[in-house]
Amino acid sequence: MYDRLKGFRDFYPKEMGSRRQMFDAMEETAARYGFREIETPRLERTQMYVDKSGEEIVDELYAFTDKGGREVTLTPELTPTVARMFVDRQQALSKPVKWVSTRPFWRYEQVQQGRFREFYQTNVDIFGSSEPEADAEILAFAADTLFGLGLTADDFEFRVSHRDILSGLLSAFDADVDTRDAIRAVDKRAKVEEVEYFGLLEDAGLSAAEAQQFDDLITAGDLDAIADFGGEELAAAVDNLRDVLAAADDFGAGDVCTLSLTTARGLDYYTGVVFECFDTTGEVSRAVFGGGRYDDLIEDFGGQPTPAVGVALGDATLQLLLERAEAWPEESLTTDYYVLQVGDTRGTAARVARDLRDRGNVVETDVAGRSFGAQMGYADSINASTVVIVGEQDLANGEVTVKDMASGEQTTAPVDEFPGALDAPTYDDFTE
Amino acid sequence: MYDRLKGFRDFYPKEMGSRRQMFDAMEETAARYGFREIETPRLERTQMYVDKSGEEIVDELYAFTDKGGREVTLTPELTPTVARMFVDRQQALSKPVKWVSTRPFWRYEQVQQGRFREFYQTNVDIFGSSEPEADAEILAFAADTLFGLGLTADDFEFRVSHRDILSGLLSAFDADVDTRDAIRAVDKRAKVEEVEYFGLLEDAGLSAAEAQQFDDLITAGDLDAIADFGGEELAAAVDNLRDVLAAADDFGAGDVCTLSLTTARGLDYYTGVVFECFDTTGEVSRAVFGGGRYDDLIEDFGGQPTPAVGVALGDATLQLLLERAEAWPEESLTTDYYVLQVGDTRGTAARVARDLRDRGNVVETDVAGRSFGAQMGYADSINASTVVIVGEQDLANGEVTVKDMASGEQTTAPVDEFPGALDAPTYDDFTE
Repeated sequence: MYDRLKGFRDFYPKEMGSRRQMFDAMEETAARYGFREIETPRLERTQMYVDKSGEEIVDELYAFTDKGGREVTLTPELTPTVARMFVDRQQALSKPVKWVSTRPFWRYEQVQQGRFREFYQTNVDIFGSSEPEADAEILAFAADTLFGLGLTADDFEFRVSHRDILSGLLSAFDADVDTRDAIRAVDKRAKVEEVEYFGLLEDAGLSAAEAQQFDDLITAGDLDAIADFGGEELAAAVDNLRDVLAAADDFGAGDVCTLSLTTARGLDYYTGVVFECFDTTGEVSRAVFGGGRYDDLIEDFGGQPTPAVGVALGDATLQLLLERAEAWPEESLTTDYYVLQVGDTRGTAARVARDLRDRGNVVETDVAGRSFGAQMGYADSINASTVVIVGEQDLANGEVTVKDMASGEQTTAPVDEFPGALDAPTYDDFTE
Repeated sequence: MYDRLKGFRDFYPKEMGSRRQMFDAMEETAARYGFREIETPRLERTQMYVDKSGEEIVDELYAFTDKGGREVTLTPELTPTVARMFVDRQQALSKPVKWVSTRPFWRYEQVQQGRFREFYQTNVDIFGSSEPEADAEILAFAADTLFGLGLTADDFEFRVSHRDILSGLLSAFDADVDTRDAIRAVDKRAKVEEVEYFGLLEDAGLSAAEAQQFDDLITAGDLDAIADFGGEELAAAVDNLRDVLAAADDFGAGDVCTLSLTTARGLDYYTGVVFECFDTTGEVSRAVFGGGRYDDLIEDFGGQPTPAVGVALGDATLQLLLERAEAWPEESLTTDYYVLQVGDTRGTAARVARDLRDRGNVVETDVAGRSFGAQMGYADSINASTVVIVGEQDLANGEVTVKDMASGEQTTAPVDEFPGALDAPTYDDFTE
């Protein structure tokens, strides 16, 4: 009767169970690194995005006028919101600030594989450190998350680059090059035809020969040669990139980091190290996720100058990578117990179910007045490990029947000792 | 520079930690009852809400036209969405269907204490059972959630009522009474002046004498007298309410359930048992949350007739109740370890931090190149239990220093045995 909106998704329990495992892995890893959970508004003033990305961004947003006449937008990303929140309490917050959150975002864009209008991200950010260890901690967190999901260093790589190296090189060719446009061209390098890519570099102000030489330098990735090519700032950027890679090595992410100066990231606000995660097999052809340093944003938002670095892991592409690596969690329900009622046994069945739940088990019992067969079919549909049959006949003997659903075997147990001292009694506990 | 929208909230880590404990308690209880997590779109077609509640509802919604010309709304509640999802897969789903989810909703309404434009709810629903055990399981889940949060039966009560008793009584007075309007009047009973309340009942079609008699009956709550007052349907509704209360008793929620026929719930779609949770002290003057049976909605949404019952627990009023009962979790950070670096010890410090994290601990280390004093101050600000000092001097002797932050005492430990075989080594492990 009603249809779901295009680009939006319903997640039913089995699929949601797998997604929950994915989100839990990210959040638990973030927690162990000392990232602290925050929660943020889903609506913000449209002006915040216009100021950051220009008026044309509005075409890609769910922007509208609220009942009070405010121009508002369903948040398309977290970074502006956390910048606003950081500025709001800048004095009171103990630095570095390390925040994490998982939630949906919205963009009005073309729906395709791994790209939706409503998508979920886990965002992790550090505010208040310009040191290479902060960049490296973001890389290490991201790597540990993927390891925690069952991936190995053979499955993925982080292509690490540096915005100041790219802009420093470009400026070394010609101080008047539009570095922002040229970096956008680099970001498109793998996605467009070669002629278009070089055309974009030339539009940004490089000559054809300079564009070729620039491309040769970033493709070769010889950091010594690049450092020699420009002035002190370029050499400092090269040193910073080396320091980040060394720190990432100490932090356990060295194996998955690859120098890749052809990586640029699309967003304008990055200022230092940037990186993108790729499927090493190439089967997932787009970047799985990415992140980097954005040292100017807090000041742009009216705060004291504050360095920042972060990463955002998106649900759809991460799922593609996990599926490719056969690491996507099985989509199934799990249930510890189904307490089956036969006849007028509700009181005892309810007591058994409550005792099992008190011990932390997932327990269902009949709430629909159904037959033995219907209850057994339901127990099977929810993948119950054990069925406890509370029948009038058994109860007259002070017993319940314990059925192991995997083997189909069953035995009886004294009702007063079920669960008794046991946390999770099974068939095996009541047989010799 | 940018301000947050009115009625929207930023949650910083300390407060969020308390909220997370509240949400976890709800979700863990729901999981133990076998409710399965789903995830749902935050935008739906506006028509869905207009059909259900009338055109005037749009004034209270964040409704707008998207870039593709669709009339869409930021979801103000979950029930229409889960009804849509249930209808979409009605044949394939194993009944009863038991779903849970926690997420924000939006209403454009007056901001006041405990009421925001963006608010969070945990919704729990059962589809496919008309039996009293389903209603009782919802009550038991809600009670167990509050018990799990540290409340006792002295702190709250569930005022349980029945829509069919109210409508049956009203119809017994006069078959032409507008039962919907009269039930809305009952819902307003405690919120408006007596004269307004009786006026609303009279507007709905009762005479002044009938309105008084009706109010006397629902206030007295004598179920026998009420059953005698009308026909078979009214008697059946009385029986159903008694059955639900008896099942709730078996399910462990009997102590907190009170018969209260002056409780009606505001939403039109309820059909059977309804209930509201109240603070027994009255300090939280509004209903903390509520729920009930809505047996007609699935059919209204184009599905096969399917009974349904559910409850929605909102974050703001639940927090008010927990605060009143002094059960709101402490708003503080917790950190197991801060690994403090002195001198050029990053490699070892990183190894120690990683080993501690691998064992499941929350561990931070320096990512900002700071002094001993600054690091110690930061460790204090994140409430670290233990600080592990990795200094050049100590390392030369193969040792690290282990400082207990509560007592301020410290000792040394062999670096090779830290953490070694221990999951969570503390000061006490390295002293006699």
